[in-house]
Amino acid sequence: MYRAQIVGATGYGGLGILELLLQHPNFEVASLVARDDAGRRIDEVYPHLMGRCSLTVEAPDSGVIGTDCDVVIFATPDRVSMGFAAQLADAGRRFIDYSGDFRFGTTEQYAEYAAAHPSIADPAHGAADLLGRAAYGIPELFGDRVTAAPIVGNPGCFAAGMIIGLAPLFADRMVEGNEVIVDALTGSSGAGKKPAPLQHFSHLNDNVVPYRVFAHQHVTETSQTLGALSGSPATVHFVPHLLGVTRGILSTMHVVLARPASKQELLERYREFYDGQPFVRVLPTPPTLKGTAGSNYCDISVEVSPDGRRAVVMSSIDNLLKGQSGTAMQNVNLMFGLDPRAGLDRPPLYP
Amino acid sequence: MYRAQIVGATGYGGLGILELLLQHPNFEVASLVARDDAGRRIDEVYPHLMGRCSLTVEAPDSGVIGTDCDVVIFATPDRVSMGFAAQLADAGRRFIDYSGDFRFGTTEQYAEYAAAHPSIADPAHGAADLLGRAAYGIPELFGDRVTAAPIVGNPGCFAAGMIIGLAPLFADRMVEGNEVIVDALTGSSGAGKKPAPLQHFSHLNDNVVPYRVFAHQHVTETSQTLGALSGSPATVHFVPHLLGVTRGILSTMHVVLARPASKQELLERYREFYDGQPFVRVLPTPPTLKGTAGSNYCDISVEVSPDGRRAVVMSSIDNLLKGQSGTAMQNVNLMFGLDPRAGLDRPPLYP
Amino acid sequence: MYRAQIVGATGYGGLGILELLLQHPNFEVASLVARDDAGRRIDEVYPHLMGRCSLTVEAPDSGVIGTDCDVVIFATPDRVSMGFAAQLADAGRRFIDYSGDFRFGTTEQYAEYAAAHPSIADPAHGAADLLGRAAYGIPELFGDRVTAAPIVGNPGCFAAGMIIGLAPLFADRMVEGNEVIVDALTGSSGAGKKPAPLQHFSHLNDNVVPYRVFAHQHVTETSQTLGALSGSPATVHFVPHLLGVTRGILSTMHVVLARPASKQELLERYREFYDGQPFVRVLPTPPTLKGTAGSNYCDISVEVSPDGRRAVVMSSIDNLLKGQSGTAMQNVNLMFGLDPRAGLDRPPLYP
Amino acid sequence: MYRAQIVGATGYGGLGILELLLQHPNFEVASLVARDDAGRRIDEVYPHLMGRCSLTVEAPDSGVIGTDCDVVIFATPDRVSMGFAAQLADAGRRFIDYSGDFRFGTTEQYAEYAAAHPSIADPAHGAADLLGRAAYGIPELFGDRVTAAPIVGNPGCFAAGMIIGLAPLFADRMVEGNEVIVDALTGSSGAGKKPAPLQHFSHLNDNVVPYRVFAHQHVTETSQTLGALSGSPATVHFVPHLLGVTRGILSTMHVVLARPASKQELLERYREFYDGQPFVRVLPTPPTLKGTAGSNYCDISVEVSPDGRRAVVMSSIDNLLKGQSGTAMQNVNLMFGLDPRAGLDRPPLYP
Repeated sequence: MYRAQIVGATGYGGLGILELLLQHPNFEVASLVARDDAGRRIDEVYPHLMGRCSLTVEAPDSGVIGTDCDVVIFATPDRVSMGFAAQLADAGRRFIDYSGDFRFGTTEQYAEYAAAHPSIADPAHGAADLLGRAAYGIPELFGDRVTAAPIVGNPGCFAAGMIIGLAPLFADRMVEGNEVIVDALTGSSGAGKKPAPLQHFSHLNDNVVPYRVFAHQHVTETSQTLGALSGSPATVHFVPHLLGVTRGILSTMHVVLARPASKQELLERYREFYDGQPFVRVLPTPPTLKGTAGSNYCDISVEVSPDGRRAVVMSSIDNLLKGQSGTAMQNVNLMFGLDPRAGLDRPPLYP
Repeated sequence: MYRAQIVGATGYGGLGILELLLQHPNFEVASLVARDDAGRRIDEVYPHLMGRCSLTVEAPDSGVIGTDCDVVIFATPDRVSMGFAAQLADAGRRFIDYSGDFRFGTTEQYAEYAAAHPSIADPAHGAADLLGRAAYGIPELFGDRVTAAPIVGNPGCFAAGMIIGLAPLFADRMVEGNEVIVDALTGSSGAGKKPAPLQHFSHLNDNVVPYRVFAHQHVTETSQTLGALSGSPATVHFVPHLLGVTRGILSTMHVVLARPASKQELLERYREFYDGQPFVRVLPTPPTLKGTAGSNYCDISVEVSPDGRRAVVMSSIDNLLKGQSGTAMQNVNLMFGLDPRAGLDRPPLYP
Repeated sequence: MYRAQIVGATGYGGLGILELLLQHPNFEVASLVARDDAGRRIDEVYPHLMGRCSLTVEAPDSGVIGTDCDVVIFATPDRVSMGFAAQLADAGRRFIDYSGDFRFGTTEQYAEYAAAHPSIADPAHGAADLLGRAAYGIPELFGDRVTAAPIVGNPGCFAAGMIIGLAPLFADRMVEGNEVIVDALTGSSGAGKKPAPLQHFSHLNDNVVPYRVFAHQHVTETSQTLGALSGSPATVHFVPHLLGVTRGILSTMHVVLARPASKQELLERYREFYDGQPFVRVLPTPPTLKGTAGSNYCDISVEVSPDGRRAVVMSSIDNLLKGQSGTAMQNVNLMFGLDPRAGLDRPPLYP
Repeated sequence: MYRAQIVGATGYGGLGILELLLQHPNFEVASLVARDDAGRRIDEVYPHLMGRCSLTVEAPDSGVIGTDCDVVIFATPDRVSMGFAAQLADAGRRFIDYSGDFRFGTTEQYAEYAAAHPSIADPAHGAADLLGRAAYGIPELFGDRVTAAPIVGNPGCFAAGMIIGLAPLFADRMVEGNEVIVDALTGSSGAGKKPAPLQHFSHLNDNVVPYRVFAHQHVTETSQTLGALSGSPATVHFVPHLLGVTRGILSTMHVVLARPASKQELLERYREFYDGQPFVRVLPTPPTLKGTAGSNYCDISVEVSPDGRRAVVMSSIDNLLKGQSGTAMQNVNLMFGLDPRAGLDRPPLYP
């Protein structure tokens, strides 16, 4: 059994990977580290874990980070993992990070991201020399790099849904002007566990709230990735909407097609592109938010306008799984040469 | 007091106008007519009406339609009111209809709508000679026509949100290519009271379901209206999404601007365009679904992309009020020379 | 027009009474006072009020409390109004308070309440000499006292639903052992506007959380009132449950009947008891949470066990209206000799 | 690998057991049988199953029932399995049934149940001679009988939550008068997949609806079981409430204690009673609806009144798992001598 350490273990991201590891055939949980709730048992923090895990959360300043484990999983905010990166690299310890710290290959790309991020003040990367050793963790596109990399930057939740949804069209240079309009709908859990006015039940229940219009930080990695796939710069016009549901991101993505195509041609191309990928499903009808909830699937479908000029791609993911912990688990599986499905093979929870 | 008759009184649309009429200073309810639940008291059908209305629902085949009232309100499916239109016109009885029957000026336009409608088999209009006497009931744009018209075709719910949201830009010829992409999110009540798989609670709760992509029947009236405002044909690429909420439509509308403009310029233009309109509010930040629920408001805001080339207009309405009964009441107020706010002056229900 | 001042104007309780006053035929809003958001316009704090109210919130330490108005409405936490009570009484200014400060006739009763309250440290009342001048504001039971009183203690939300639901049985001494078991379900808005872990959307959505079992502070006023009605001490075994909905309290109340009775007899007695009360509706079938949402109604029904020994009384109220601001408005109407329905005559928002 | 056949495979109950079987280490799905959707692939009926199961649904009149399998799982309405029971018994084929057909040991007990069931017209059992060979499938109480039985009657969802919650108190004769008052809250999925007015989204969303007060058919098996445990007849006063959530049953159960006990004593007794049971968890604080959703757990806690006379037991289950398919899987595991956890070891889906 490999041993995994979770840093940021008491947030929703840490909880997600903990639950996956607890059912994993090849991993065990080495330790839980978090600033909040340090000293408490994890099944006190999350009573639904009773009988499943009774580890005590350790404080991050205890020197525990990176010890007695094969991989460290940082389910932490931006700019946490970069502070531990050098020490872990020196010790030959592999790690994966949920934040934007290791999603970008260059400091320039990182700076663009940092500038768009509402809570990053300093655009300078704290471990710039390690960026070249990190892989961007979309396993469907960059699985080989993930397998070889000592560091993996797990993608942003919106980015995961958009990139998987659009990659076949951009890779085929099928997008006129390399430009896409995206309206995305997200559940509240993406904002984490901390109470806040936008996530207050009485406010959010039965509500839809557009936010950070044209200004969300996940656009950077999305446009860079799609641009790289197509060979020329890509532009993503992105409007996120916060929704009164707990889980899920449904992205509706509009492109003008570079050459006419039918829905059937596009679906066929998508099936071919993702052939062999266990967690991408190409559907004949629009995906639904609930059709992926509780699972690691990304469901995709496409519709074409009557004149054949335009396509709408729709993708659905569980933001806490395929948009976060599920993809992290899939990446860790690849890093350790395991079946990508290990610990992840469960159906959506429907109804 | 004027007297209003409601046909289709036991659906959500009939219920909505009934509640407004019961609180109206100038109207009283003459009679309730419906095929379903005929013979029952309305407060048996809707127990929440107890103590507010105890009228018995009358069957439509009773000859009652159009009798003993000043106006008939058809809260009925497509192709019902056109069957009674000639008889009402002959009797000099004014009426308003919720369906597509009288939204179009010509039989050609109606046929385009009918072809897109999933439940209209026959594209031929049943009262073609009366189309010229009907006004399309967007009171903010066509108030004068509504005031003078013996027949009003109340707009479709999605159309109301899109047209009010986009009219200033199209009227100013600010939309490049006269083309707009719209993702709209709607609550379940727009589908009415009849149980159906898509509206089954266990399916719809916590769900988002895109449907009729590029194929919704409300596009016809929207593109015709926007085209007429701008003087050249308009194209609306429309993706409706069904949402696990009861009330509301939030429309996110993307255009390329014909000439650069700042957010402030656009907001200022919107405020000017809707000056004096009691139910359109132009907000400095994105509207929310819940910000209009329970009221007749249409809340609108605009964001402009960093390069100034693109705008996103967002509008929020309560689909059962501004998207249906509220606009109907507003239209009826105009038809009778009353203050448009009569019976409608209530705040959104927040939280 | 009378003039009302709202203290605590930016919480949900203050918002509720503000919206009612804005539509009231006999009242205008004199001023808004609140510690939070002082200096901001109320329609910035609550954007859904745009076009309806643009008053600026004033700080409570500004000396404004009690000035230039006919009545002060304290929508404030416990132990706020008692600090202003003497000064208002001296000035002959009437006031109503949402908290427990003036619900009790004696300091002993208050101390019992204070001991059960999770956020009251000091059981000593700060204006004990004024308790005798205050009326407990259940208008259906104590309307005469409310009319005459310079001070009204508005009831707790759970207490309102329980007392109105049980008063006829206790007044008739129909409850064996004067003992009742109550399971109550409440929406999240009762906890107010401030973000907190229990009201965090991701936690509360789709959830039910029993809390303060046998220990809720609203039991004190309920048992005292029911005891007084029946002439001997009453016991209320109360279990509140927090629910993933925004509005409403549904209380299910179990009693053993002192003498056998049929459902019809009980319903008849309830109708007689509440005859002439505009906001109590006795239904033949169980009330629903949504059947009162958005209105000032308390809907009640009763079922009797097959052996005739037991009755279940169910009541439904909107916790923010009949459970708070609606009853406050009704009480203020009585205090000023107005129709109790003034400003309150609106239907539930259904569906 | 054992082979299981699912009858009624396209309802929520059939779906639930299908998903469990698909992940089971010792079972494979032999065939899917259902009246509705016969001839369609199951992943067309439920698109979220794409990539997980592509079996075609077979019609029940095809002679397929009981063939080529080791066990038949009837996820069917009342009075379906009794029609196939003799033929299966003759063939030596074991089966489990979700309905009330085989929950009762005698025809008298069945008749009492049938009389209370709103959709059973005929109280005569159709396979009376087989009742003695059936076990009532609460594995925590009757595991030995289940292991040995050729037929298992899976419990009703409400009954499961009540019986597991109350068994320790009744077994210890701790309940005064052997009488309990239960308010239970259920999600909509218990009513199944078929659209109906009560489960219509616009009606049920944000709603709570008490129904069948004192008259629910699950009371029969609950009172019989609790009575048998305690050695004298038990009475259950039961009020179910339909809730606007998809999954879960939270039962709040009130008893007078036969002798005083503290909360800690009771919790200790519960832990002892359920020692070794993998799916019962005794919590120190009230269970929540969401704390078991998506899992096979029954979470229980207890509170005692200040005077020590009364206890409130609260239990939470996922109505589709511990209340239906999960318990069925657990029972089938026992029938085949497997670990009761096989195929069921997954955490609740939180948040």
